[in-house]
Amino acid sequence: MAVKAQVLYDFIAEPGNNELTVKEGETVTITNQNIGGGWIEAQNSRGEVGLVPEDYIEVRSTRLIKQTLLSLAALSLPLSSLTFSFSCLFQASNGNDPWSVWNADPSGGSNNNWASNPEGTQTGKTAADPWSAASQGHPQAYQGPGAEDDEWDDEWDDMKSTGGYAESESGESGAMQRGGAHATSMKISLNKFPGFSKSGPELYLLCKQLAKGKEKLPIYMGEVGPVWSYPESQLDCVVADPKKGSKMYGLKSYIEYQITTNRPVNHRYKHFDWLYERLLDKFGSAIPIPSLPDKQVTGRFEEEFIKMRMERLQGWMTRMCRHPIVSCSEVFQTFLTYKDEKDWKTGKRKAEKDETVGVMIFSTIEPEGPDLDPVEVEQKCEQFSRFTKSMDDGVKEILTVGHEHWKRCTGPLPKEYQRIGKAFQNLSSVFTSSGYQGESTLTDAMTAAGKTYEEIAQLVAEQPRKDLHFLMETNNEYKGLLGCFPDTIGVHKAAIDKVKEGDKLVATSKITPQDKVTMAKRVSIMSYALQAEMNHFHSNRIYDYNRVMQLYLEEQVKFYETIAEKLRQAHSQFTTM
Amino acid sequence: MAVKAQVLYDFIAEPGNNELTVKEGETVTITNQNIGGGWIEAQNSRGEVGLVPEDYIEVRSTRLIKQTLLSLAALSLPLSSLTFSFSCLFQASNGNDPWSVWNADPSGGSNNNWASNPEGTQTGKTAADPWSAASQGHPQAYQGPGAEDDEWDDEWDDMKSTGGYAESESGESGAMQRGGAHATSMKISLNKFPGFSKSGPELYLLCKQLAKGKEKLPIYMGEVGPVWSYPESQLDCVVADPKKGSKMYGLKSYIEYQITTNRPVNHRYKHFDWLYERLLDKFGSAIPIPSLPDKQVTGRFEEEFIKMRMERLQGWMTRMCRHPIVSCSEVFQTFLTYKDEKDWKTGKRKAEKDETVGVMIFSTIEPEGPDLDPVEVEQKCEQFSRFTKSMDDGVKEILTVGHEHWKRCTGPLPKEYQRIGKAFQNLSSVFTSSGYQGESTLTDAMTAAGKTYEEIAQLVAEQPRKDLHFLMETNNEYKGLLGCFPDTIGVHKAAIDKVKEGDKLVATSKITPQDKVTMAKRVSIMSYALQAEMNHFHSNRIYDYNRVMQLYLEEQVKFYETIAEKLRQAHSQFTTM
Repeated sequence: MAVKAQVLYDFIAEPGNNELTVKEGETVTITNQNIGGGWIEAQNSRGEVGLVPEDYIEVRSTRLIKQTLLSLAALSLPLSSLTFSFSCLFQASNGNDPWSVWNADPSGGSNNNWASNPEGTQTGKTAADPWSAASQGHPQAYQGPGAEDDEWDDEWDDMKSTGGYAESESGESGAMQRGGAHATSMKISLNKFPGFSKSGPELYLLCKQLAKGKEKLPIYMGEVGPVWSYPESQLDCVVADPKKGSKMYGLKSYIEYQITTNRPVNHRYKHFDWLYERLLDKFGSAIPIPSLPDKQVTGRFEEEFIKMRMERLQGWMTRMCRHPIVSCSEVFQTFLTYKDEKDWKTGKRKAEKDETVGVMIFSTIEPEGPDLDPVEVEQKCEQFSRFTKSMDDGVKEILTVGHEHWKRCTGPLPKEYQRIGKAFQNLSSVFTSSGYQGESTLTDAMTAAGKTYEEIAQLVAEQPRKDLHFLMETNNEYKGLLGCFPDTIGVHKAAIDKVKEGDKLVATSKITPQDKVTMAKRVSIMSYALQAEMNHFHSNRIYDYNRVMQLYLEEQVKFYETIAEKLRQAHSQFTTM
Repeated sequence: MAVKAQVLYDFIAEPGNNELTVKEGETVTITNQNIGGGWIEAQNSRGEVGLVPEDYIEVRSTRLIKQTLLSLAALSLPLSSLTFSFSCLFQASNGNDPWSVWNADPSGGSNNNWASNPEGTQTGKTAADPWSAASQGHPQAYQGPGAEDDEWDDEWDDMKSTGGYAESESGESGAMQRGGAHATSMKISLNKFPGFSKSGPELYLLCKQLAKGKEKLPIYMGEVGPVWSYPESQLDCVVADPKKGSKMYGLKSYIEYQITTNRPVNHRYKHFDWLYERLLDKFGSAIPIPSLPDKQVTGRFEEEFIKMRMERLQGWMTRMCRHPIVSCSEVFQTFLTYKDEKDWKTGKRKAEKDETVGVMIFSTIEPEGPDLDPVEVEQKCEQFSRFTKSMDDGVKEILTVGHEHWKRCTGPLPKEYQRIGKAFQNLSSVFTSSGYQGESTLTDAMTAAGKTYEEIAQLVAEQPRKDLHFLMETNNEYKGLLGCFPDTIGVHKAAIDKVKEGDKLVATSKITPQDKVTMAKRVSIMSYALQAEMNHFHSNRIYDYNRVMQLYLEEQVKFYETIAEKLRQAHSQFTTM
């Protein structure tokens, strides 16, 4: 018997790729469920058959939600983190500002249209672009033509081999990016990171036995306070040479990038995504792991899109390489240096089995300083929250303004210069037709002046790619990074709350007095980690903004100088009278 | 018994000037008709009494129209010029392009919203701004706040002493500027220039005895063709020092300007207007006399308006000084060099009695070349018509584009730079709040960069006054000048048509064969004059555009260099890493 399914979202077929265009609400018949790679073969009511992303059609999703809610209900401990997560969820669905956990000023959080954040932990890829109002619009000019359809792509075709959660995660991620329906966003977040969702920070705060791995993450006292241990030389890598490959006998295509540190390795976007998931899983409680550049379905083989994605993957990799903890991690090293397919598979499997994930990462952290006072811990946490919130506002402002400036510089402004140029040239043509002797010096000069303004039009239109682009990209990257902080800080906030409850928990025999002492000590360790991470963030921020501002101003100077020089030449063609 | 009158147009009282605000359609009672100066005292239905321009209320206007039409009907000769004038009138009322007399291309004459031109002669002041669409909008920033009300002013207060036609002329001029009702525009033009309206070019072509004055206007053959006789040194004058005066025991105020060639003389706007009328009357058939800057009622004592008017009066005077015929004329010299009030009155009276006006000016012209072939005369005429039409299009294009550019440069663009500046400064403030050590170099530099963009915003907003202003003013002046050409050329066209009719007129005994020969000779003289004038126009045009383009580009270079330098300084504040 044919299986019927309902289409959840519009999907536009990539031409020549055996896909089937379907519309939300449409009913299709599943003709082959064993295509793999996240695709299903379906037939529409007109008898047309083609591939559709399986997550675009409703087959098992309602069952999944039920399962998730049931497993949550089954958790017996009165986890403060769970309470926190649900309050967050409701805040988000009411359109409130998740930053307001620390910052009561409602005026500060305009337009924060966040995805919900049920576990007080990083929502990961789904939170990729919480400031999407600014980011979706921004780099129009260099996004591929289909860039606005931030949808599912086929980079997931062998996801099933990488972990049991990938199936639902990838599907929901697609759903999120289509507009952030809150009901599905909860499902993702609850389901996405087993290490997170099955534990609040108390998993670490109260665990009897810390992981006995060889992993140690020391924190030293630097001039600026707690700092991570930095490797002697900073890792660097180059993402380049995108190549189109195909699989399933040419049925599906993909792009493979070359990543080079010492020796080049090849990876598809889905491998980057796998790496991102691993890093998020392992370090996300302590270190904000910025999202990868967005997925998208249509236009994903277009040159401009590939170039843009590569540039952003490069930016992401560079940021990861610059992080002392991430860059030295085994999973990251595996990604960069695997020798062959077998080595890669082994490395993958090992990383997926890593148990020091979620809040347990704190168990590997060894600060050299004395235990911190809980009050100080809380103050630091609040300070970081305020700062990242303010910076987030500032970054968004630059993105908004920059976006408008981009539009003006590539739209009306060059058109106006062009019209000025044309007007000069037209008048010059009229003058030429006068029949009056000896005005060729004037008409030649006027024509040249007109052409100069046409050149200026072009300079104006091209300039944003030379300077504003980098200013926007850097701020866009920071926007993504700052979007991870509420989660990272949320873990700490939950831990602090737990410690505050200490006396009550002892009184009600939920924990022992010794547990309370341990919790205070461990929250101090968490604070060292947060401070080290903030200091890492600050030093990177100073470096990045210093660099991007310099680059921007340098290019702006060149731009205005070029125009001045062109006009000087145009001016020199007129005779002095 | 009280005389009732109907208000024809809205009039807003100048505060503190004993004026009465009235609305179109309102009925008022005349309380004093003997105020003088074009004003009438009236009382509205609420009992308020005040002065109203007499031409804003209907007292005699319908009677005037009837008189004019009757006097036209009384003309017995089948004047081709009259036919021409009526066809022109209908063209204008149908919104057609009067340039199309010569140029059949309908696409060339977009938006030519001309006043009618019934006599094929200059419509004078009423044609001041036939491209008003472009000109009204343009120099917003430097017009006084009431500049859009191009209405009647009190500069006419002793007009009655200057000539019998002034009364109706001034009134209708006001009416025209209020929106160009076609019925009244005909009345003006027919009525305005007795020398014109009572004669087509045949007055000159066929007159038995040419004026025997001492006036001689020689035309020489120069390198470029026929040229006027240029004085050895070009006249120059300075319009400056506007002072407020008052009359009628302080009831009415006016502005007096100082005009200096060798010795300063004082003149009010109405004297300029008197001069304009004399020049138009005397030379208008042969020389395009550009209109004065517009009159206006409200805001005419505002500093900005006075400054602007002065600047434009200066421009107008300079152009007149540069004209070899105008500058040497007795009336112009009287205006510039009168010794005392008595001298001025005598000069005025003499000028007003001058009979060598209208087409009779051609009787004073003495070209040194041989008689021109009628075919050549016609070709020249058509060539000039085409050229002035094309140039008019070109000038209008620059005005339109320049107007838009002006708006952008003083509106959205500086706002955007300001926002960019603010965004940098805001982010800098956030950075300052980080609590992280040693980032003051970055934050100081970012703040400075932000301030630089605020300075750029100001530079951008101020720049149009420094360069675009002169480009616009020059083109605006040329627009006015070019607007006179259809009339000047129209006189020639009418003369050519008359000559073409020669055989028919001889056959029907309307003229003698000798008349026909005379006509051909005289139209050749007219052509010499037109060519000399065109050559004068061309040489001025080349000078003016060379100068204004240089000035524009020079200031543009400075502008972009200043910005580049400011940005270079901002850039230097960042540390190199």
